[in-house]
Amino acid sequence: MKELKVLIIGAVALGPKVACRLKRLIPSAEVIMIDQSEYIAYGGCGIPYYVSGDISSAEELMKTSFHMLRDAEFFFNAKGVKVMTQTRAKKIEPESKRVIIEDLKRGKESVLNYDKLVLATGSIPIVPDFKGAELEGVFYPTDLTSAIKIRDRISKGKVESALIIGGGAIGCEMAEALTDLWGIETILIEKESQLLPGFLDETFSRMLLKEMQQSGVIVKTDQTVKEIERHPKGERLKVITLSDEFEVDMVICATGVRPNSELAKDAGLLLTPKEGILVNERLQSSDPDIYAGGDCIECINLVSGRWQYFPQGSLANRQGRIIATNIAGGYARFKGIVGAFAIKIFGISVAKTGLTFKEAKDCSFDPIHALVVQSDKAHFYPSWELVYLDLIVDRKSRRLLGAQGICKNGDSLMARINPITALLYNGATLEDLSNFEMAYSPPFASAMDILNATSNTAENILDGLNMTIDPEEFERLFFKEQSQECICLDVRGPENAAPYVKRYGKRWINIPQEQLIRRIEEIPKGKMLLLMCNSGVRSYEALIQLKDLGFEDARNIQGGIAALKMADIIKNDS
Amino acid sequence: MKELKVLIIGAVALGPKVACRLKRLIPSAEVIMIDQSEYIAYGGCGIPYYVSGDISSAEELMKTSFHMLRDAEFFFNAKGVKVMTQTRAKKIEPESKRVIIEDLKRGKESVLNYDKLVLATGSIPIVPDFKGAELEGVFYPTDLTSAIKIRDRISKGKVESALIIGGGAIGCEMAEALTDLWGIETILIEKESQLLPGFLDETFSRMLLKEMQQSGVIVKTDQTVKEIERHPKGERLKVITLSDEFEVDMVICATGVRPNSELAKDAGLLLTPKEGILVNERLQSSDPDIYAGGDCIECINLVSGRWQYFPQGSLANRQGRIIATNIAGGYARFKGIVGAFAIKIFGISVAKTGLTFKEAKDCSFDPIHALVVQSDKAHFYPSWELVYLDLIVDRKSRRLLGAQGICKNGDSLMARINPITALLYNGATLEDLSNFEMAYSPPFASAMDILNATSNTAENILDGLNMTIDPEEFERLFFKEQSQECICLDVRGPENAAPYVKRYGKRWINIPQEQLIRRIEEIPKGKMLLLMCNSGVRSYEALIQLKDLGFEDARNIQGGIAALKMADIIKNDS
Repeated sequence: MKELKVLIIGAVALGPKVACRLKRLIPSAEVIMIDQSEYIAYGGCGIPYYVSGDISSAEELMKTSFHMLRDAEFFFNAKGVKVMTQTRAKKIEPESKRVIIEDLKRGKESVLNYDKLVLATGSIPIVPDFKGAELEGVFYPTDLTSAIKIRDRISKGKVESALIIGGGAIGCEMAEALTDLWGIETILIEKESQLLPGFLDETFSRMLLKEMQQSGVIVKTDQTVKEIERHPKGERLKVITLSDEFEVDMVICATGVRPNSELAKDAGLLLTPKEGILVNERLQSSDPDIYAGGDCIECINLVSGRWQYFPQGSLANRQGRIIATNIAGGYARFKGIVGAFAIKIFGISVAKTGLTFKEAKDCSFDPIHALVVQSDKAHFYPSWELVYLDLIVDRKSRRLLGAQGICKNGDSLMARINPITALLYNGATLEDLSNFEMAYSPPFASAMDILNATSNTAENILDGLNMTIDPEEFERLFFKEQSQECICLDVRGPENAAPYVKRYGKRWINIPQEQLIRRIEEIPKGKMLLLMCNSGVRSYEALIQLKDLGFEDARNIQGGIAALKMADIIKNDS
Repeated sequence: MKELKVLIIGAVALGPKVACRLKRLIPSAEVIMIDQSEYIAYGGCGIPYYVSGDISSAEELMKTSFHMLRDAEFFFNAKGVKVMTQTRAKKIEPESKRVIIEDLKRGKESVLNYDKLVLATGSIPIVPDFKGAELEGVFYPTDLTSAIKIRDRISKGKVESALIIGGGAIGCEMAEALTDLWGIETILIEKESQLLPGFLDETFSRMLLKEMQQSGVIVKTDQTVKEIERHPKGERLKVITLSDEFEVDMVICATGVRPNSELAKDAGLLLTPKEGILVNERLQSSDPDIYAGGDCIECINLVSGRWQYFPQGSLANRQGRIIATNIAGGYARFKGIVGAFAIKIFGISVAKTGLTFKEAKDCSFDPIHALVVQSDKAHFYPSWELVYLDLIVDRKSRRLLGAQGICKNGDSLMARINPITALLYNGATLEDLSNFEMAYSPPFASAMDILNATSNTAENILDGLNMTIDPEEFERLFFKEQSQECICLDVRGPENAAPYVKRYGKRWINIPQEQLIRRIEEIPKGKMLLLMCNSGVRSYEALIQLKDLGFEDARNIQGGIAALKMADIIKNDS
């Protein structure tokens, strides 16, 4: 039998996974992997940690867990895979099943034949169309080559100030890398009105914003860049936006990436709306002998049913395995994604899964959301952190649509976000989450964990028991408009409420929840009551009592004062 | 309309939850909760932390998250619930819908009527039938009253040595409490051959055993107690087992609990096999006006389809909510459990969900298991802990049946166990877990996280690609029988392998995996090869290569040397 010949274009995440698994499934197969870079098989998601210096050398990102460098020699000796670095695929000829390649060191062209071709071409940075986007000193931190250049420049001590364009995941991570470890004065600008647009709704993006600002990053939102120009004297760059100007030593453009699908397109393969390579569940492109996966494809979001471009090293690895199984004659599928996302920024971890509230609306759901703040361990356990968790649910079907969370303990946050992800796959409803069986013991969770409590809160909202307002709505009514039509009724103990009563006078009154019924006469009639407690639990109790006593116009502030403080709507008591 | 009258017997976990939610749903309802103890609404799972001194006073366990003591007065003022403590329900008369109660302080009997009755009677300790089980100095740490007695005695400095009977969760937690904070010489005896029988399979119970022993607990398994007797001189107790004798100052009997269902039984309600109160999905007993939940019922395990008695404060809370919803005329169901379990013992956290391997076999599945050891973060991330994860899968259907895990970082472990729990609800298969979308970023997970990797390993085992042996089987062959028919082939680098090659001579040879093909002649023919690496990954690669080269009789050691060391089968290099 003729040996199976598999050619893989791209050797960062998906490529190596396909290659290694394929050799395990069919040891006799000839597997060739080419990459235009000299750096291969690296953890691209580690780039911010390399730039920050947390990871000492670029080689660390290319090593296995047992500290072997995953270079061409390693792939050949340990895996039987032939790797050609600094080799570019110029053209795919699907009909003759061959690829024209170019040796970038020697500039020499040649041809490789294949039985099966795998496109692991990854993503390329979206270079913005403003003037100066390609000036020297403007960096795109999307591959290891660029990351090395950035760190080189920083470590030479030439960078005292930097500006990052783009408040997405990479932009935020780079801001931390520059500020925290190198002490660079860092400005982060974002064209939308919030950080991590598309990943977080307003409340949570404000929590992240607060953390970044407190950690020394200067964040400016609603900033559209018009131009970058080099300062006439010296090396500094001037970033000109529609409303401002910034002069810095370095600019990092984290304006996103797009599928690197030119080669596929030129070969006549079909693409998805965002120019990902179109694949089926078996990860075959429109040519069944050509597979594609990782950052060069778009996936179906299983919650929204729509296409989503979601470049993640983790997806690439899983898809790589599937491609290898299928090429080897096995049966494996990739059904889609739910959009699970996590990021650690300074002292907090932020995560989401499924859809945001905004996305849910865009997808024609009728979403409601429930925001709960609770400790990650039993409240009587000696040490714990607060978890801020928001759940998005479809009103009609009570189907879970997504969740967002923030916690100082990232692992605790993952212990809540990951099971929601698992439930999202199956179209789970609130009933499933309310009864979800978190492994329980005081060092890990509450008996009624925040995961269950948030689901219960959503249910109470849908049942009309819990009438809520969002932190931003409270801000608008109480602080911005200073509406005289509403007052804040603080149902905590006087020791907690006193500073606020002092600060806001008659607009902030205090009656502890357990005294509410006998002190009901103290509550002014005819006003909207904004009910405040630490987290929204006692105020919910108060809401029920007030409704029972005829106060219909009362609203429970979601997440209580904990959320208001975390989102920087109320400043810490002082 | 006549006011709804609800009587709740038991005021620890489920009772208060029912009462409070019910008052929120129907503020006009009359809700009375009785309990024979003076302590109510406490976190029973916090008892070991109270005994250890981690939690300073018993009152801490009775407080809300906002530090209010949940006593009778609190329930009345804040919740509108009437609580009668030190009040025992003597008899239920379902036909006349009344309960005869006794005021334990005054010894006075009276009668309470109800429209709906809730049995939240919890569990009672199984008092063993050996002589001396009820001697003074023998404690049953199942309620706060007993816990207070234990701590009183310890804190008076009278206890220098203690013996715990029972190596279940409470027994292990109490062993830590006594050893770690009070410095008491603690002996733990267990009648089965391992710790946490029913919760862990052998490998993981040995990992736990090692941790307990290293932390100073003397653990003796296979010990059946014959008798406890008081030492003729003084207060010491002598525990006599079939094979040994122990003299200590205090005995703690953690021999399990059973449903407290006498009252229900006497009232003619139906019971389940382990004498839990039989309930339907709405949590109604065989009398539809009597509900029951928490530790006094048995649930259906959704993986095995069988009854399981699984007393957990977390389940009680969720069931309490369901009962309140149903009593209030809403629709809520409790479909069953999957058996998620977690415990922190000294420096490690241990968890399981679903079935153990042994249980799976008992339930007529045809299980295989996959054991993987991997870091909880990306391996290049500066800090991480190893996760030991074992997945149990049905051979025919490839359905997930359960998982066990150990990690020093308990939250990281929860981030893996909880999503498996979520998948178990839906009869998920390996395909679902292989593609499971963990929220990914280097501070939280690997791109190919252990969760996915373990699933992939199970798939490789089922596909006949990965031929494994278990750590215990390796121990038997290599250490106990010292079989000359098999040798250990260590495929790590020489720096790791050298101490073992030196120690075991010809029975432990070293060829790094990437040199295997060119050094194949060095491998003795006709022997079974036990392939060793750090975690089972490189040895799997080696296994494939060896099979391709005609070495059929090779086995990959599950979990590699990491698992062997953790389970104390191989001692640390020295």
